[in-house]
Amino acid sequence: MPTILVVNVNTSAAVTDVIAAAARAAVSPTTGVVALTPRFGPASVESNYESHLSAVGVLDAVQGYAGPFDAVVHAGFGEVGREALQDVLTVPVVDITEAAAHTACLLGRTFGVVTSLDRAAPSIADRLLLAGLSGRCTGIRSVDLPVLELEAAPEVTAGAFVEQARRLVEDGAEVVVLGCAGMAGVHEAVSADLADLRVPVVDGVAAAARLAESLVALGLSTSKARSYATPGPKAVLGWPLR
Amino acid sequence: MPTILVVNVNTSAAVTDVIAAAARAAVSPTTGVVALTPRFGPASVESNYESHLSAVGVLDAVQGYAGPFDAVVHAGFGEVGREALQDVLTVPVVDITEAAAHTACLLGRTFGVVTSLDRAAPSIADRLLLAGLSGRCTGIRSVDLPVLELEAAPEVTAGAFVEQARRLVEDGAEVVVLGCAGMAGVHEAVSADLADLRVPVVDGVAAAARLAESLVALGLSTSKARSYATPGPKAVLGWPLR
Amino acid sequence: MPTILVVNVNTSAAVTDVIAAAARAAVSPTTGVVALTPRFGPASVESNYESHLSAVGVLDAVQGYAGPFDAVVHAGFGEVGREALQDVLTVPVVDITEAAAHTACLLGRTFGVVTSLDRAAPSIADRLLLAGLSGRCTGIRSVDLPVLELEAAPEVTAGAFVEQARRLVEDGAEVVVLGCAGMAGVHEAVSADLADLRVPVVDGVAAAARLAESLVALGLSTSKARSYATPGPKAVLGWPLR
Amino acid sequence: MPTILVVNVNTSAAVTDVIAAAARAAVSPTTGVVALTPRFGPASVESNYESHLSAVGVLDAVQGYAGPFDAVVHAGFGEVGREALQDVLTVPVVDITEAAAHTACLLGRTFGVVTSLDRAAPSIADRLLLAGLSGRCTGIRSVDLPVLELEAAPEVTAGAFVEQARRLVEDGAEVVVLGCAGMAGVHEAVSADLADLRVPVVDGVAAAARLAESLVALGLSTSKARSYATPGPKAVLGWPLR
Amino acid sequence: MPTILVVNVNTSAAVTDVIAAAARAAVSPTTGVVALTPRFGPASVESNYESHLSAVGVLDAVQGYAGPFDAVVHAGFGEVGREALQDVLTVPVVDITEAAAHTACLLGRTFGVVTSLDRAAPSIADRLLLAGLSGRCTGIRSVDLPVLELEAAPEVTAGAFVEQARRLVEDGAEVVVLGCAGMAGVHEAVSADLADLRVPVVDGVAAAARLAESLVALGLSTSKARSYATPGPKAVLGWPLR
Amino acid sequence: MPTILVVNVNTSAAVTDVIAAAARAAVSPTTGVVALTPRFGPASVESNYESHLSAVGVLDAVQGYAGPFDAVVHAGFGEVGREALQDVLTVPVVDITEAAAHTACLLGRTFGVVTSLDRAAPSIADRLLLAGLSGRCTGIRSVDLPVLELEAAPEVTAGAFVEQARRLVEDGAEVVVLGCAGMAGVHEAVSADLADLRVPVVDGVAAAARLAESLVALGLSTSKARSYATPGPKAVLGWPLR
Repeated sequence: MPTILVVNVNTSAAVTDVIAAAARAAVSPTTGVVALTPRFGPASVESNYESHLSAVGVLDAVQGYAGPFDAVVHAGFGEVGREALQDVLTVPVVDITEAAAHTACLLGRTFGVVTSLDRAAPSIADRLLLAGLSGRCTGIRSVDLPVLELEAAPEVTAGAFVEQARRLVEDGAEVVVLGCAGMAGVHEAVSADLADLRVPVVDGVAAAARLAESLVALGLSTSKARSYATPGPKAVLGWPLR
Repeated sequence: MPTILVVNVNTSAAVTDVIAAAARAAVSPTTGVVALTPRFGPASVESNYESHLSAVGVLDAVQGYAGPFDAVVHAGFGEVGREALQDVLTVPVVDITEAAAHTACLLGRTFGVVTSLDRAAPSIADRLLLAGLSGRCTGIRSVDLPVLELEAAPEVTAGAFVEQARRLVEDGAEVVVLGCAGMAGVHEAVSADLADLRVPVVDGVAAAARLAESLVALGLSTSKARSYATPGPKAVLGWPLR
Repeated sequence: MPTILVVNVNTSAAVTDVIAAAARAAVSPTTGVVALTPRFGPASVESNYESHLSAVGVLDAVQGYAGPFDAVVHAGFGEVGREALQDVLTVPVVDITEAAAHTACLLGRTFGVVTSLDRAAPSIADRLLLAGLSGRCTGIRSVDLPVLELEAAPEVTAGAFVEQARRLVEDGAEVVVLGCAGMAGVHEAVSADLADLRVPVVDGVAAAARLAESLVALGLSTSKARSYATPGPKAVLGWPLR
Repeated sequence: MPTILVVNVNTSAAVTDVIAAAARAAVSPTTGVVALTPRFGPASVESNYESHLSAVGVLDAVQGYAGPFDAVVHAGFGEVGREALQDVLTVPVVDITEAAAHTACLLGRTFGVVTSLDRAAPSIADRLLLAGLSGRCTGIRSVDLPVLELEAAPEVTAGAFVEQARRLVEDGAEVVVLGCAGMAGVHEAVSADLADLRVPVVDGVAAAARLAESLVALGLSTSKARSYATPGPKAVLGWPLR
Repeated sequence: MPTILVVNVNTSAAVTDVIAAAARAAVSPTTGVVALTPRFGPASVESNYESHLSAVGVLDAVQGYAGPFDAVVHAGFGEVGREALQDVLTVPVVDITEAAAHTACLLGRTFGVVTSLDRAAPSIADRLLLAGLSGRCTGIRSVDLPVLELEAAPEVTAGAFVEQARRLVEDGAEVVVLGCAGMAGVHEAVSADLADLRVPVVDGVAAAARLAESLVALGLSTSKARSYATPGPKAVLGWPLR
Repeated sequence: MPTILVVNVNTSAAVTDVIAAAARAAVSPTTGVVALTPRFGPASVESNYESHLSAVGVLDAVQGYAGPFDAVVHAGFGEVGREALQDVLTVPVVDITEAAAHTACLLGRTFGVVTSLDRAAPSIADRLLLAGLSGRCTGIRSVDLPVLELEAAPEVTAGAFVEQARRLVEDGAEVVVLGCAGMAGVHEAVSADLADLRVPVVDGVAAAARLAESLVALGLSTSKARSYATPGPKAVLGWPLR
């Protein structure tokens, strides 16, 4: 009975609830999902500044979690910090940005992303570039809604998402990706609204949770050979956070 | 209770058995695996010529399968033909080359591939290039053994694999991929032999089977928007094969 | 007196006639052109599925041709299968997609392609990516006409081609490529219609036939060092086709 | 009289002193240099984990600095966090990795990097990839010495650096970059030792300090148009650090 | 007191004056600027043909300059010839295209260029490709004015520049580059007009002059290891120019 | 009866003779070849400096040629200047570097280049990068012989070439390219010596001459749409050369 830790990157418990529900729906019934809300960091992540603060909040949340777990999902779309978790853990770590992109690549030749605010697009593009998947992404568009409004007003979010998704498909996207963890709740609605296009819609939270479970089932975990080797013990001022 | 069709690309029933076992071990107990051996095509696939013949053999096998199925695994490492299946099916199709590469990307920053013969390396490189994943592949090496000897002499295969895998890791690979479906049977042995390096070893058959099951569970299938739209009815001489 | 085999990828004799005429007009008067129509495969190739069937039809046609020949032109724009021919032959093999793209690169800094249906664009893009020439292609547009209507209604084809070609040039293309073998017959007409733009129009069939003749004249043929080494003898079920 | 803030990424005051000296030697006599040591974060940065902690330590140090300043140098070679500073500041921010790479590009067609530990190489490669400069980097080698030993044993460091630099030049590097802030103190020594090769050696700290001064002189600062737009006010738990 | 030679690529003394003024304003008060006008070559450079003639005119001007100098600025935006100077000199040589692009990269995630005529765009793109910086350039637009009109009618130039710059920013550019040496005189005006966008405007002449000065201050010069090694003595017909 | 102008880039008549012979052997018997030796420029081209001088020498030679001609071959391997010719001519211009690379791409999946001196490698790499063909080039090695010794001592050249070619093939090259016009005379000898490898050897002069003839036969010439549009009349100081 594996347990997947799913870590929100912001401090909003409502967003954590949305994420937890999406993850639970994606994994096998016998797999446990524990969703964590950081006690450090911004209420929502919409800038590089907030992304870097959230990386430490996520580290703190995971390192402070007392129970056993078998994999971690880093639920920040376009956010930094996945590599830090990989360094300090021996279980698999799956980032929702990458999970969504890899999954989309199995479903179509190209994919597009719809995110919250336009200013999130560059950081998503950077994550895709580092993942080597930029070449298959035809575009990143935004609904122009702040993160915290996404789950608060799902109907508005869904309508705006569908509009942007249709433009991505016109421009060549064959798969559309929900580009924010806070959008997980509208997955079903937008999939239905886009059914005429016959393009799959990928939710990174669901994809990451399922991939994390799959890695556990396959007996695979993070390589410790080079990039993510466990750091040795070292003095760190102010850490762990009090 | 989903059923995954796993299709061998060669006409060797012994290789089909190896593939079927790897797939069955990778999926959930309640998921069915049906392994198919083509009735058309080469005894093993070690050239572009044989790869193109096998693509038609795989199509024939899948289109000739009468029972229900929920996803297909195309079990040719570096072989062509995955796109043809995606055109004519509405269920997900997962290629083992791509499954292995995407999975490897979740486990390390880079990966290397060990395949059968050196001449298979270019076609694997082409598949990775089309998948957009070349940038994360540090090298493709070979054990210099024909495909049909791989499962026939697993100890020789395992020894040769481990030697090449170590060289890939020295050159920067953080994950190693089994670059031939016929190597699925040595996965456990080589993983054990390489344990000191702390690099995961990915078997594409297992990865693809699990990913196919995951796509089914997530309710996702191939985009029909453009590249893989269903072809209209059309006269095809000599087809289906008699 | 070299002889060039020019192989249609579909089973339409009318298309073979168009291709043969274009090839004959392109080579020296003393060079022979033999055009082949496959006896296996689809009436036209407009999907990955049909492309893979056609690859075997082309192999069958070439391997079944009894007379002597000095080079082969694979006349499928964006279709797979050129590598398979290279494996089994020792004479040069020239694909019309690549012939057109290489020729275009000698004439301008960038080129664009006009093809039949939009869904052909991804497979053309894949061929250009594998050829390393994607970076010089500014776009692939379509006339939105099925392959078999192209040669049947040359005036409609020419008009639609010119319209799309002008849009490609507006977007930065300096050379325009006829992106379907079935368009060979409108080369002269569209070149005349586009004369004001001063952009050359390249027909892949003509370019490939001339390049094939040139390789023969230069004494050059396919490398047998690695990717296209001759496969050894091997059991192939159902092959040759009856 | 501009003032440049130069921020160490680790908490070692000895390293800060080395960095401060290099920056002061690089700028005009009338430019002030203020070097900061974070009060939060690791004693040295040699992993992704430590890099992400250091990003917050650097933010804290800069936001907590009370005096006026005209530009910031982020003195972590291969470390994350430059973008976070750009978001919250209106003065230019120069990262030493990028400063070194851009400067090297003005001096030779290619460059190589010598860093502390091999495991730092991937994060440096990631920074160069994001900067678009990977194509000009021929390799990243390491002296295999921890960061804190670099300035503590400058003669050992210099000797090891020269050895690796010579190998990079043999492999095609035309410029060599000091790939760790803690190496700034050996710049003169290694430049002298490598004089016979006629390859320049670039210290990122010096380059960044001079570039920062230059941006100030040119009246240029960070674009606020998109990626680095100032974040709005928002609740951040646990921040500022106490 | 270093001296920077700033070399115009055309034979217009009026353009040289504009360039000299921009360079002088950019460097420290104690740094000397000597601006040269070639005695060989075209009145303005707006084609590859003229660019290649100008490269020899620039070489002639620099090799014919009798006084001492410490660095050279090659003031042709998108023009060839920088490498030739690097071969024959031991002081640093900075090209304004590259100086502008490297500087822009320090200020934003992406940049766009506004040049004189549309036909200059391809040669600028080529220079950026060789510099490895294409990936960060979102577009090159033109004011559609010949080079010699740019400094002759600065108000027209500024207005046209601002219009094109705004379109580049709409399309994702975070920094805008003046893509012609003859535009240096409108830098201040267009920066003011674009202030509402909060995107920096980079003048390559100013950036190059300051970077050249910086390289001198840092004690760095061109690598002589490979690409730019000093050519041996050799008979050259017709050279030096009489 | 078309006439091809083949222009040497250096002022050595002996090299021109070698080039002329290779070109004549490559074209049809009825095609004329006129070989030109510049009256301006270096005795051999082995640096960027000499390459830029040669570009003007080539322009002068072609513009000064009084007779009719139908195409031009620019016979400098890795040298600049092809674009300048394209601007001022309306007939096709073929560069031997590009001709060799495009031809090699028709013969194998990858190619390698053997050139004269190591310092020529970067400029060849730059030409391939601009041509978009870098991805298919596995390496550029040198025989370490000055250009003028290549044709003077063909046996030494051939031996050294074969040695380097074998190393390229070991490293994955499937085709080998003669990377200097002065090597044209050893084409037959080295092809024979390398026969056991079954890799074709491509001479750029022969390839370019045949491609130029082919473009003429196909009725194709340089696009005048953008990059190579004819420059308007303009004052050019010192030009034409006296």
